[in-house]
Amino acid sequence: MKGKPLVSIISAGLSKFGKHEGVYTRELFSYAAKEAFDRCPTLNPKQDVKAMFIGHMGEAYEHQGHTGSAAADWSGLLGIPATRTEAACASSGAALRSGIYAVLSGLADIVIVGGVEKMTHRSTAEVTEYLAMASDYPFEQFHGITFPGLFALMATAHMNAYGTTQEQMAKVAVKNHHHACLNPKAHLQKEVTVETVLASKVVAWPLKMYDCSLITDGASCIILAKPELAKKYTDQPVHIIGSGQASDTIGLYQRKSLTSLQSTKLAAKAAYDMAAVNPQDIQVAEVHDCFTYAELMAYEDLGFCPVGKSGQLIDNQETCLGGRLPVNTSGGLKAKGHPVGATGTAQAYEIYLQLTGQADKRQVKDAQTGLTHNVGGSGATATAHIYRSDN
Amino acid sequence: MKGKPLVSIISAGLSKFGKHEGVYTRELFSYAAKEAFDRCPTLNPKQDVKAMFIGHMGEAYEHQGHTGSAAADWSGLLGIPATRTEAACASSGAALRSGIYAVLSGLADIVIVGGVEKMTHRSTAEVTEYLAMASDYPFEQFHGITFPGLFALMATAHMNAYGTTQEQMAKVAVKNHHHACLNPKAHLQKEVTVETVLASKVVAWPLKMYDCSLITDGASCIILAKPELAKKYTDQPVHIIGSGQASDTIGLYQRKSLTSLQSTKLAAKAAYDMAAVNPQDIQVAEVHDCFTYAELMAYEDLGFCPVGKSGQLIDNQETCLGGRLPVNTSGGLKAKGHPVGATGTAQAYEIYLQLTGQADKRQVKDAQTGLTHNVGGSGATATAHIYRSDN
Repeated sequence: MKGKPLVSIISAGLSKFGKHEGVYTRELFSYAAKEAFDRCPTLNPKQDVKAMFIGHMGEAYEHQGHTGSAAADWSGLLGIPATRTEAACASSGAALRSGIYAVLSGLADIVIVGGVEKMTHRSTAEVTEYLAMASDYPFEQFHGITFPGLFALMATAHMNAYGTTQEQMAKVAVKNHHHACLNPKAHLQKEVTVETVLASKVVAWPLKMYDCSLITDGASCIILAKPELAKKYTDQPVHIIGSGQASDTIGLYQRKSLTSLQSTKLAAKAAYDMAAVNPQDIQVAEVHDCFTYAELMAYEDLGFCPVGKSGQLIDNQETCLGGRLPVNTSGGLKAKGHPVGATGTAQAYEIYLQLTGQADKRQVKDAQTGLTHNVGGSGATATAHIYRSDN
Repeated sequence: MKGKPLVSIISAGLSKFGKHEGVYTRELFSYAAKEAFDRCPTLNPKQDVKAMFIGHMGEAYEHQGHTGSAAADWSGLLGIPATRTEAACASSGAALRSGIYAVLSGLADIVIVGGVEKMTHRSTAEVTEYLAMASDYPFEQFHGITFPGLFALMATAHMNAYGTTQEQMAKVAVKNHHHACLNPKAHLQKEVTVETVLASKVVAWPLKMYDCSLITDGASCIILAKPELAKKYTDQPVHIIGSGQASDTIGLYQRKSLTSLQSTKLAAKAAYDMAAVNPQDIQVAEVHDCFTYAELMAYEDLGFCPVGKSGQLIDNQETCLGGRLPVNTSGGLKAKGHPVGATGTAQAYEIYLQLTGQADKRQVKDAQTGLTHNVGGSGATATAHIYRSDN
C-alpha cells in the first residue's frame, strides 16, 4: 500500500491555546471537538464516530485520570469506546497512530483522535515536576534533573560535535515567534529578536527562557475516516500516507548518541517508506520544538539537512515561511504553546489547514505534502506522519 | 466476520501476584513478558513483535509515566512502537482492544498487549487517593468519596431494588478465595467463610474488608497474532472472536440507574454480536470483581442470569468451579489480586490457560468458549472479550 492513503482526515479542531481559567480538561477538549464537528456538517458525530483515542499526559494536574470517558461524554459521544493514550509529550501522536490502526482494522470506519492538557492553573515548579515523570525516575528524576537539563545535555553535545551556536538556537525562537504572530490561536503572539533570546534568563545552559516552549492549556483533534468514505464528508480530505512510531531507552544515559534521537530516525524511516516519499518531497512540517535545540536536531533526524548542518538551515532561513521548507508555521511548541497531551494532534491540525488552503496569513503556497513529528520525553517515544492532499 | 477469529493468542505471561519489593514497574512487566516469550520458543520477539500496548493506571505510584517505552526496553523490544493505555482499572482491557485494532489493521501482524501496576510500596491511604483519580474530581473526589464508597452506593441500590443480601456478597468472596487457593500465582491463597467476611471491618457499608479486592503488585501480557499466522507459533491458539468496549459518564450522579453498568451492557452486546454467541454459550468467565458486589452486578449485565437474580446464582453455586458457569477461577481481583493496570490482560491470561487445558487444579473440563470483563473506575469504561479454542 506504498503511497496509498491509510486514512483520510475529514475534519479537525483546535481550542485557542493559552490560559483557560475555570474549565476542566474534559470541557477544554470539547472546544476542539466542537470545531471539528461544526466544520463537517454532514457528519453525525453520535452516530458516525465509532471510537476515540485521546492523548493526555498528566493526571496530576487535576488529580484526574480516566480522561477518555469524560472527554467522550463532554463531546457528545457518550457510550463510544474511549481510551486515553500516554507517551509523554507524544501522547496524541500515539493517539493518532492508534486511531489509524482502528480505522484500518475495519472495526471503526470513523474515529476521533486528539489530545488535551490543562497546565496553567499549576505553578511552574509543579508543572516541571509533573513533566519530569516522563523521564527516568531512578537515574534522572531522583538526581534532580528536569527536562530543560536533559535537553541542555543534548544541546551541548551537538555544540561540541558540530559547532552549533546559541545564536542558531535563538533563530529558531525568532522564526517560531514570528509564525505565531500569524496564528490567532497561538498562545504567545509576540515577535522576539536574537538579542532578546540570548539575553533572557538561563534555565539550563545553553537553554534560556526564550529557548523553552510554553506552559499552555489547549486541546486538539482530528477526525479520521476510511479513505473510501472521505468524499461523503468533505470535498477536501487530507490523506495520511505514512505513519511511524518508535521507542528508545527512557534514560539518556543508556544511549549511544546524544546528538540525535534514534526514535525519530526510526519513526521517520517507517513513515517515509510507507508513504514512498523522501524528505525532499516535504513542503511543510510541524516538528517537536519543545526547546529550540530540539527543532535543530529534528531537521537532521528527519533528513531535512545533512547531519551537523541544522544550524546552517536556520541561518539560511530555509525553514521560515517563504523558505524552501517552512517548519512550524503554527508557531510550534515554542510560541503556539505546548499543552503536552494536545501537541501531536495540534501539529496534525496545522498540516490539515495548510494542505486545505485554510492557513490564512501563514499559508504555504500550493502545499500538498506535509509532515508532523512528535517526541515524548527526551525521545523515548517519537511519531512521524506524512500527509497529502489532492487539492 | 461474525464468529470468525479477529486475532489469535499465541502466548501469554503473568508475574506472580503479590508483593514485589525492590523492583520498578518496568522490571515487573518484564517477568510477564519473559514467561510469554519462553512459552513460545518459535517466536523471535525482537524481530516478530511489531507493537506494544500496555495498560498502566497510575503514574503517581512511582512518579513515573511514559511506561510504554520503558516496558518495551526491559522486555527486549527496544525500538518498537509502545503506547501506554489508561482507562482506570480497565487500562489493559483497553490495551487488548487497541492491540486487536493493530493486528486487524495489517500494519502489525504480531503485537504484545499487557498491563502492570506496582502498588504495595505505597500506604493504603496513598493507594486509595491514587485510585480515586479514576472517579470524577469535581463531583466525587472533591467531596471525599472513594471507590469503596461509590460501589457501596451501587450495592445498597441493588439491595433495595432486588433484596440482594450481604451474605450473597460474602459468598462471592468465599468462592473467589477458594479458587485462589488453586492458583499458585494468586496473592492471597487463603480460604474464608461467610462468617469471616461478615465479621470483617466495615470499609463502606455494606462492603467490608473481605468484600474488597487486594492492593497488589503484578503484571500480565498476551501475544496476539493474525489468525493465519497462529499455527506457525503454537499448536493451541486461542482465538478472540468478539470484542467490545464502551464508555459511560465518569460520575455516578449522572446515570439513570445505579443497579447496573450501561458500559458493561454495551460492551457485552458488541462482543456477543461479533462472536455470534449467547451468554449461555460461555463456559468460563473472568469478571471484574473489584468488590464482591461488582461480580453480582456483572452476572446480570453480562446476561449470565436475569436482572435481580444474581444473588440466587451465587446461592446455587452455579459460578463455583464445578458449577454451570465457573466465574473467576483465577481467584479474581478479590483474591488473586488487583494490580489495576494489569487486571484486564491477567483475565485474558486465565482464559488462555483454561481454553488450552493448562489451568491445572482449577481446570474447567472441556472449556472451549470463555469471556473476560474488565471495568474502569465505577463503570465509565468497560471492555468485554470472547475467546474460543479449537482444542
